[in-house]
Amino acid sequence: MKRKVAFVLSGSGVKDGTEIHEAVAALIALDRAGYDIIFTAPDIEQTAAVDHYAEKPERETRNALVESARIARGNIKPLADLSSDEYDAVVFPGGFGAVLTLCSFAKDGAECSVNQDVRKLIDKALEDGKPIAAMCIAPVILARVIPGARLTIGTHPETAAAINSMGAVHVNCPVNDSVVDRERKIVTTPAYMLASGPAEVFEGAVNMVEKLGELF
Amino acid sequence: MKRKVAFVLSGSGVKDGTEIHEAVAALIALDRAGYDIIFTAPDIEQTAAVDHYAEKPERETRNALVESARIARGNIKPLADLSSDEYDAVVFPGGFGAVLTLCSFAKDGAECSVNQDVRKLIDKALEDGKPIAAMCIAPVILARVIPGARLTIGTHPETAAAINSMGAVHVNCPVNDSVVDRERKIVTTPAYMLASGPAEVFEGAVNMVEKLGELF
Repeated sequence: MKRKVAFVLSGSGVKDGTEIHEAVAALIALDRAGYDIIFTAPDIEQTAAVDHYAEKPERETRNALVESARIARGNIKPLADLSSDEYDAVVFPGGFGAVLTLCSFAKDGAECSVNQDVRKLIDKALEDGKPIAAMCIAPVILARVIPGARLTIGTHPETAAAINSMGAVHVNCPVNDSVVDRERKIVTTPAYMLASGPAEVFEGAVNMVEKLGELF
Repeated sequence: MKRKVAFVLSGSGVKDGTEIHEAVAALIALDRAGYDIIFTAPDIEQTAAVDHYAEKPERETRNALVESARIARGNIKPLADLSSDEYDAVVFPGGFGAVLTLCSFAKDGAECSVNQDVRKLIDKALEDGKPIAAMCIAPVILARVIPGARLTIGTHPETAAAINSMGAVHVNCPVNDSVVDRERKIVTTPAYMLASGPAEVFEGAVNMVEKLGELF
């Protein structure tokens, strides 16, 4: 029986959704390691929709589930419909969608709120002892939900301070490594918080997936 | 001096643009091999814009350059503005955008027309002896433009027949391998024409990039 990963997306594109290189780097690493991927995203309007060429707001709003389906090649389900027997672990790639739509960290910092279905997913995974992995800026969601969590967003001082002020513990980490909280079964890697390109993102993703495997 | 690759996108998402896993798999392989990436796409409306969740047309049209910027993280230039001193090789990832917007193969089959800036790019690369790589369905563009080209789209019989009827030579190829035309400096790999998931796509991309390196 292959282990199943709930892969939580927030759109498709670094500036308003899931960071695409991070998502695919993690997908390659997870697929190579033998996991099945269960794509999911909240079925809500994205908090922002940004023209990635002109760096200005799009004319129309975009739905996080519909846009995430681009990364998922169509095979995705609404987060509200995901039941806990469908996954053995949870993975959050980064991108601004993680801090705009999955939580409000981009606007509210340490005072941020977390989407209620995302919070339920994390709470349930913790309760069931299922490991959680997160990349780039997505670990701030875990910092908000999981008291005392040890995690990394790389080395960015202000973000690290915000994480500590939410009651989590930030640990500096290089791009090709990840930080493990064995007690809470969390593994996090900096990805584009530090990476100079897709190869470094992939190195970190491979490391994260290896360490995820040790948390079952 | 690092070699530079013109990486030609057609949107962001398998059903109407560039296939995202293929693009990122190739980017990781190219970055690891030491290439600089010059992202480019035609600054035109996509021939289609498809809701990847509901599999129905989007309400609005989408621009190929603007959507491609999601894969490029914003750093992309219009294909019409790309000059030949900016790249040493050309790479086309797959996705329906390649046969909807870069050429019209999805509608017109072997009678397809090719976007004029895409045709100019390929003609100029051939003239200058610069290698060209293509994945998945994108090799049909090369079949239309380059007489006698030896290439693969995997094993799909109807597509292979269309390629042969355009005057190119189709060669069956497994997912983890690629086909090289040394005379014309072309390398092609099946990617999602055969792949069962992102790890297989990555295997093919790594193989393609290795063989690309032998064509300089």
